[in-house]
Amino acid sequence: MKRSYLDYAATTPVAPEVLEAMLPYFHDFPGNPSAIYAEGQEARQAVEKARGSLARLINARPDEILFLSGGTEADNMALAGILNANGCRGRHVITTAIEHHAVLETCHFLEKNGASVTVLPVDTNGMLDPGEVEKAVRPDTAVVSVILANNEIGTIQNLAEISKITREKGVYLHSDAVQAAGRIPVDVEALGVDLLSVSAHKLYGPKGIGALYIRKGTRISPILWGGGQERGKRSGTENVPGIVGFGKAVELAQLTMASESGRLSALRDRLIAGVLSTIPETRLNGHPTQRLPNNANFSFDYVEGESVCLNLDLAGISASPGSACSSTSTAPSHVLLALGLPQHQAFGSLRLSLGRWTTGDDIDRVLEVLPGVVARLRAMSPLWARK
Amino acid sequence: MKRSYLDYAATTPVAPEVLEAMLPYFHDFPGNPSAIYAEGQEARQAVEKARGSLARLINARPDEILFLSGGTEADNMALAGILNANGCRGRHVITTAIEHHAVLETCHFLEKNGASVTVLPVDTNGMLDPGEVEKAVRPDTAVVSVILANNEIGTIQNLAEISKITREKGVYLHSDAVQAAGRIPVDVEALGVDLLSVSAHKLYGPKGIGALYIRKGTRISPILWGGGQERGKRSGTENVPGIVGFGKAVELAQLTMASESGRLSALRDRLIAGVLSTIPETRLNGHPTQRLPNNANFSFDYVEGESVCLNLDLAGISASPGSACSSTSTAPSHVLLALGLPQHQAFGSLRLSLGRWTTGDDIDRVLEVLPGVVARLRAMSPLWARK
Repeated sequence: MKRSYLDYAATTPVAPEVLEAMLPYFHDFPGNPSAIYAEGQEARQAVEKARGSLARLINARPDEILFLSGGTEADNMALAGILNANGCRGRHVITTAIEHHAVLETCHFLEKNGASVTVLPVDTNGMLDPGEVEKAVRPDTAVVSVILANNEIGTIQNLAEISKITREKGVYLHSDAVQAAGRIPVDVEALGVDLLSVSAHKLYGPKGIGALYIRKGTRISPILWGGGQERGKRSGTENVPGIVGFGKAVELAQLTMASESGRLSALRDRLIAGVLSTIPETRLNGHPTQRLPNNANFSFDYVEGESVCLNLDLAGISASPGSACSSTSTAPSHVLLALGLPQHQAFGSLRLSLGRWTTGDDIDRVLEVLPGVVARLRAMSPLWARK
Repeated sequence: MKRSYLDYAATTPVAPEVLEAMLPYFHDFPGNPSAIYAEGQEARQAVEKARGSLARLINARPDEILFLSGGTEADNMALAGILNANGCRGRHVITTAIEHHAVLETCHFLEKNGASVTVLPVDTNGMLDPGEVEKAVRPDTAVVSVILANNEIGTIQNLAEISKITREKGVYLHSDAVQAAGRIPVDVEALGVDLLSVSAHKLYGPKGIGALYIRKGTRISPILWGGGQERGKRSGTENVPGIVGFGKAVELAQLTMASESGRLSALRDRLIAGVLSTIPETRLNGHPTQRLPNNANFSFDYVEGESVCLNLDLAGISASPGSACSSTSTAPSHVLLALGLPQHQAFGSLRLSLGRWTTGDDIDRVLEVLPGVVARLRAMSPLWARK
């Protein structure tokens, strides 16, 4: 039985075109891009071509793109690198309650090491009020970090409004665009961001490679030290096949984004309408319209998201209870709690995220299987019986 | 014309067997290892299999192996992670003058942030006297970091002697084994190390993946924060194909190390004897016998290593002037200066490093081409004429 993979927000398969582009760089071109001989120079050219592709996708300059090991490293560097390089500006960070752990945990670490962190609330749809940023900025604020599209609920923030404030106040704005890049247009000029995190494996590129956009003139310190690759900003031998794959994935995304966005949002809307109309006491989490085209997130009262996922797995459907980025956590989603959901809803969440190989058949299968799964689990729940 | 790639110390091509093992994990098994459904669990099993392979190679336990983005990150984490987690023990680091930049630059960063660093000298063969470690340890010493086999000159340290001292003194011992692992036996018990860095792309695995061995019970803090992967020690979605390739590369290394070591050291010895006998005023850098089986490093008085490499490149030979890990640096090698070489020798160094696809023909070509290259460059050098 062909499985229905509906966890594209956790990771995407590598596109065949991407893998094909990578293959020669595994064996045929063994050069270290820092080397001066022929193989090294071929590797260097491939790296720079990919840098150009990513720059085009986000409307940046190639020399504003830094390759590193993934979205997590990008988020870490954006925050720690800015604080380390801008001591005179202050050590206050502003972020939101619905950031990815890569931002929130970095903030916790920085806080333990003398930084001050303000975590802003969001509304029930997961939207941040730009006015909250304005109120939170202090003379010692160095950087504001706001996720562009949330990884669990898909809500897309009004970054352009927020950047008006950060620019006026003269503080850096970072955005984790790991879920957004390749799925919706991301233009660093239109958004007004100074730093932006991207990951290849969320857009049909390989795992283990990501990038940080750093606006020209931004003062930022490395967080990994060594041979001085990436213009001294990120040491470590360049992951040439990974970078080449990332570049190809980005080119494909640019070509297909408009049509895929339309196709996927139609499938998603059918999924959402079907689930809400067939399963009682179910809530769609995230903004009703301002959300990623591939994201649906539901809360089913009085069932556990993990149990739903295990049952879906048996039926050949791969989905995630809230965020699948951290393993075997039994805590309720911090994102859903930030929306104001009570615990019994925050625990009972299911994220279905669509992608390139998702078809109407996959949606049909979910709509056929999910109502029965939720009903069976509720029948076993003493809380449901008592409510 | 088939080229002679003699820069295996900079990076190795991915072995065909390794690429074959990786391929299914790019597309067929798209799971995030943290996910609970079938694809995720398949990915998890593949990651744990590779962890077991690496553990076997270095005689460690699987739960002592941490996967991360490469040797640079491993070195950074070993030092910064130990200092961050052991504040009470002190912030003194001991290292040597011939470490890789990933260790030395991390030390510089830590020093700027309040740590104290002692850099020990080595002898003319690049050997560290264990007595120097004993003298340097202070009550506030947290960690000693000594490279197992040097990346430029191939000298292999007496780690087992050094670890007797660090154990007696109760300080952690880290070793950068990036060049050693897969080329010579590396046994963390025999060496007595507490932390050990390994990189996949130096042993026919892919770029962008490495590991840090952390002896059970070692207190160490993460340096990247986020979803809590790798038992909370290294956040970021696991690079599944990279880890699988690393595991396969390690299995191959274990199978072939003994025979390859013999084959390569015979070729290397012929290369060294040939170069020294045909090119006057040439010095072999590094220990004459206690060195990596695949490393030869020469200094030619009064020529520039970079010019030698450019000329070799034209003749189809890929080699490196000293260390090729950092790009377009015009500074003389810090390793060669630490051996006590005068500048005119430190600038004129050439590293030839052999590997799996190196044959006698490659050595013949070097012996045919190199004497002429050096003679021509010397003929153009005013310093050579005046000496």
